[in-house]
Amino acid sequence: MTKTLAYAAPEAGRHLGKWSFERREPGPHDVQIDIKFCGVCHSDIHQVRDEWSKGIFPMVPGHEIVGIVSKVGSAVTKFKPGDFAGVGCLVDSCRTCPSCKSGLEQFCENGNSGTYNSYEQDKITPTYGGYSKMIVVHEDFTLRVLEKNNLAAVAPLLCAGITTYSPLRHWKVGKGHKLGVVGLGGLGHMAVKLGASFGAEVTMISTSPSKEADARKLGAQYFLNSKDAEQIKGAKRHFDFIIDTVSASHDYDMYLGMVKPDGVMICVGGPPEPISVKGFSLIGGRKSLAGSLIGGIAETQEMLDYCFDHQIVSDIELIPINYINEAYERMLKGDVKYRFVIDLATLS
Amino acid sequence: MTKTLAYAAPEAGRHLGKWSFERREPGPHDVQIDIKFCGVCHSDIHQVRDEWSKGIFPMVPGHEIVGIVSKVGSAVTKFKPGDFAGVGCLVDSCRTCPSCKSGLEQFCENGNSGTYNSYEQDKITPTYGGYSKMIVVHEDFTLRVLEKNNLAAVAPLLCAGITTYSPLRHWKVGKGHKLGVVGLGGLGHMAVKLGASFGAEVTMISTSPSKEADARKLGAQYFLNSKDAEQIKGAKRHFDFIIDTVSASHDYDMYLGMVKPDGVMICVGGPPEPISVKGFSLIGGRKSLAGSLIGGIAETQEMLDYCFDHQIVSDIELIPINYINEAYERMLKGDVKYRFVIDLATLS
Repeated sequence: MTKTLAYAAPEAGRHLGKWSFERREPGPHDVQIDIKFCGVCHSDIHQVRDEWSKGIFPMVPGHEIVGIVSKVGSAVTKFKPGDFAGVGCLVDSCRTCPSCKSGLEQFCENGNSGTYNSYEQDKITPTYGGYSKMIVVHEDFTLRVLEKNNLAAVAPLLCAGITTYSPLRHWKVGKGHKLGVVGLGGLGHMAVKLGASFGAEVTMISTSPSKEADARKLGAQYFLNSKDAEQIKGAKRHFDFIIDTVSASHDYDMYLGMVKPDGVMICVGGPPEPISVKGFSLIGGRKSLAGSLIGGIAETQEMLDYCFDHQIVSDIELIPINYINEAYERMLKGDVKYRFVIDLATLS
Repeated sequence: MTKTLAYAAPEAGRHLGKWSFERREPGPHDVQIDIKFCGVCHSDIHQVRDEWSKGIFPMVPGHEIVGIVSKVGSAVTKFKPGDFAGVGCLVDSCRTCPSCKSGLEQFCENGNSGTYNSYEQDKITPTYGGYSKMIVVHEDFTLRVLEKNNLAAVAPLLCAGITTYSPLRHWKVGKGHKLGVVGLGGLGHMAVKLGASFGAEVTMISTSPSKEADARKLGAQYFLNSKDAEQIKGAKRHFDFIIDTVSASHDYDMYLGMVKPDGVMICVGGPPEPISVKGFSLIGGRKSLAGSLIGGIAETQEMLDYCFDHQIVSDIELIPINYINEAYERMLKGDVKYRFVIDLATLS
């Protein structure tokens, strides 16, 4: 076992502070990674505050991890010490159920192992995330990172990137499609970049007109102020797809009204309250309200490779780890462009 | 103009009684049909009771119409007097918008003309439905009926048939698919017959175990009692598709839990209250909640021809028109197997 320095929330809702715990020695198929950077995801806050299911504490959040391989197990073939590597939201899964076998480990029927606030496949050993100096992961759940010059900005691809890449690919969004992106945050800014890269005509839909210039810089061709009734009316049946990245409750019927017949509104945010939608918003146009959750491991690798080839990274604000509690406060106010990333060199 | 005998609701919520009004003389492209039978749809009750948008009264309901062509306009090529013909939920549409051009007249952007409680394309002349002796309809919205021996049982195909046929075809439901049908009423019994005919493994999902024998006779291979928690649990991630025919509020999350990852739950009923669904019910399996509304004209013809070829009709209870108010009361209690059809010979 290796003592590992980290930042953890000791209990639900408490501030994060320095903590140390033990990671396993790499087994034959394990990769040990010295973590260089870790992105800060909105779900980190939800889980630290115990807003989803009951959390496992102390909790070391972080599932947007990039670093350098420091050690590999005897049977590892995909990585060698010195390689750049990434870890996303999953560190293991049953590998035998229909979902795992079809590369959808995020939907593992027997319960996958999340990178933190979860258990290894033994269902006993808690997992601890990337707000730490080092991590040990099975090579099958370790991702190849080719980008070396802007490593910190790669980290958020491991969650925000794949969460938006996967549905855009699944629904084959691209040339000839009008794509609306609701909400310009960590997920939204990646949806704009990726949607534009895939050839779709992207419209940023936001309640904040002040975000228009930024949205255009990121690749949006149009901007729609969703507080302006005239603009909403003018966009009736306009979009082939809407990606909804908002985690707070909002008016789904309004957005579905802007979707064309046979169009799809895809939710990737996780609002705590149930979604309320009028039956006719779906029936009156054969529309679909769908959900999508991160992506499988193979698709996450595909996304990283695509982003490397197309020079797509996240827009980030690099922070020292002792800034994390303040970063959470700022995220709750939407005050970040567009992802905080922790520099793990600041943890010692 | 031709004086036409009918049954109408004089005002919202009132009982239906005898009434007469004038139908237009057939124009060059019109077909005049002597109505023989008209099915009684749940939406007739909703509209007579003004439970949707504000109704147009007096209201002559009925959009499951079959009869015999009695007269045709000079330019009509598709029908001649003596032909059997049908009229469904639509009698016209703009014909120029993208939806109309792609055969989805039910989603006409400029407002289609419903068979009753609607207006002709002049947006002035009210439309009156099939609880009447005769109707005049443009030939493009008149349907060919080949079944002659069981004409009364064809009538419900014009709404209940196409409402279930269309989504099953759109989502390509068939061999190798597990299909759940929620609710065994007018729509549900057609969904079972058609789903089974398309080769799907059909499970009837109902709160009434007493319906099992009937469901199996209609073509369901399995029956699931949705009040039995053990059965629900056993069906977790079981279905590729669920068709939900229920018009009352119910637990959508429970049904979505029985849908496989990437599966679709299709709503064809129109509950008056908004649908409430947890975001994670969709996100945790890339599932879709979709709606579907009747079908376009070409597809309705395709459905009638398919049903003729495969000897599929509705299970009906034939009634005289003066039984209509009592029939409504029985429908509200679910006391009909599975569609009332009015014999218009009883109206004079």
